[in-house]
Amino acid sequence: MARREVDVPALVEQARAGSPRAVARLITLVENDHPALREVMAALAPHTGHAHVIGLTGSPGVGKSTSTSMLVSGLRGRDLRVGVLAVDPSSPFSGGALLGDRIRMTDHVLDPEVYIRSMASRGHLGGLSWSTPQALRVLDAAGCDVVLVETVGVGQSEVEVAGLADTTLVLLAPGMGDGVQAAKAGILEIGDVFVVNKADREGADNTVRELRHMISLGDRTEPGLWRPPVVKTIADRGEGLDEVLEALDKHRAWMEGNDELHRRRVRRATAEIEAIALAQLRERMGDLGHGDDLTSAAEEVVAGETDPYAAADRVVAAL
Amino acid sequence: MARREVDVPALVEQARAGSPRAVARLITLVENDHPALREVMAALAPHTGHAHVIGLTGSPGVGKSTSTSMLVSGLRGRDLRVGVLAVDPSSPFSGGALLGDRIRMTDHVLDPEVYIRSMASRGHLGGLSWSTPQALRVLDAAGCDVVLVETVGVGQSEVEVAGLADTTLVLLAPGMGDGVQAAKAGILEIGDVFVVNKADREGADNTVRELRHMISLGDRTEPGLWRPPVVKTIADRGEGLDEVLEALDKHRAWMEGNDELHRRRVRRATAEIEAIALAQLRERMGDLGHGDDLTSAAEEVVAGETDPYAAADRVVAAL
Repeated sequence: MARREVDVPALVEQARAGSPRAVARLITLVENDHPALREVMAALAPHTGHAHVIGLTGSPGVGKSTSTSMLVSGLRGRDLRVGVLAVDPSSPFSGGALLGDRIRMTDHVLDPEVYIRSMASRGHLGGLSWSTPQALRVLDAAGCDVVLVETVGVGQSEVEVAGLADTTLVLLAPGMGDGVQAAKAGILEIGDVFVVNKADREGADNTVRELRHMISLGDRTEPGLWRPPVVKTIADRGEGLDEVLEALDKHRAWMEGNDELHRRRVRRATAEIEAIALAQLRERMGDLGHGDDLTSAAEEVVAGETDPYAAADRVVAAL
Repeated sequence: MARREVDVPALVEQARAGSPRAVARLITLVENDHPALREVMAALAPHTGHAHVIGLTGSPGVGKSTSTSMLVSGLRGRDLRVGVLAVDPSSPFSGGALLGDRIRMTDHVLDPEVYIRSMASRGHLGGLSWSTPQALRVLDAAGCDVVLVETVGVGQSEVEVAGLADTTLVLLAPGMGDGVQAAKAGILEIGDVFVVNKADREGADNTVRELRHMISLGDRTEPGLWRPPVVKTIADRGEGLDEVLEALDKHRAWMEGNDELHRRRVRRATAEIEAIALAQLRERMGDLGHGDDLTSAAEEVVAGETDPYAAADRVVAAL
């Protein structure tokens, strides 16, 4: 496929002026790792830093899409511009398709102040760490006041999403393993706000109690530290929305009050710079491969003439 | 914890002489990313390249441990020295613990010609790509004729295990989604030998037929290409063992006959060298962080004064 020339300044201007098409186009450039990305990111940079990035994660079945949809409604009720990135770490699909239970998001599809985008996280460069932060920059620069990053809590992705967000919202449902579910995979450590959805189900109060207990056993009980609240919702009826928004506001205010927001963003930018730098270095190594340095080193390792460390030293030296 | 001095030449000599303790100790050095690893790998290099590395993967419940145990019995019946690496991509546990259904492997625990080791794949450097190939080198140099790498077919790990192995054995069971199960995640592409275990269950012949059909639709039907056989087993009764061993032998002979074995090993060594080189570069970047280059770049990105690409250029230039 021949790549169309991209008029980056025009596209960035349109995106900033609120064109959903331009925003979508920019995110597609991110997903395709388009050569124009450098120019795009340079043009976006001065306009970033405004959006409150909220990561939303939870196991399958806890009601992530419904909760996201509820939050979008609440934020739109405050007249805020909202971006939604639905990141599916297992899906090979991407490109803004609204699949499966994302259909619930159709409530907001026609709202020009809501940008919704599904992304497959496992691109050729792998991981949330590559494309998602750049898509966030696009939405941020396009004037979103809040960007919700929704991801399934499977494997590493929930920890990764916490690394991307200003505020991480962990979603649970009653009767899904509860305490065990929360304790595994460090969910207790990554959540800034816990939401027990489907609170009309049996055991909801138990789940809330158990969570609060486990949080109280954690290391975030000192004065001045953020103590994650636990909020109950019934997302498909919109119940608990105000409480969730209040918890998110409080967390943001707390972060701004003690420089934590800045610290988190510097950490995020560090990871982003590292990922880009490593991708560049990996690409250079690939080029070495074609120039035979890497391949000949690999041949020697296979022949037992050298070991991978000594070979790696040579490759690094040749970069 | 203070690290004991490691007498690498003595340890390598003991491992080569068949000491399970020495082998275990060397793999622990790998898992801990011990400073002596470079010396260890240099000492092992001349003794590597003998073992036939067989990757064994499949969804939970297909009988991986039982099948591994059956294969170990068969290979021991041929008087071969066997290594087993059970890699659990989701487990935080490691260090040779035999957990859960690995208990079945206790048949072989007292056999001094069988080295069994459980490894957590998600170490601080992440992924199978880091520690598993080095553990393979230890077992290879210790004189194993065959090393079985067993891993749960979840997410990327089955693709990763295929990258590590000379021969990849994909295990399935009847009535677990069959065709769909096989088609997803590229299982058809990575398998060199397919085994339908629990063949006494209803639907086994259907599964076999369906697999063969799907293989026939694939791109490996040209003359000279390897056409993956589909074998039925009932692993807990040892049924089908001979057929599986024969299929593995044939695949090895085919690879040796057309240089594919060498090609796969060069590819593997390339990936290994790359992973080590990238880890070194990442470490250097971390050092830059302390020296403030990376952190100050991240501060500028957060302030919108520069973009991540320009920042990455600076970091790469500073390496």
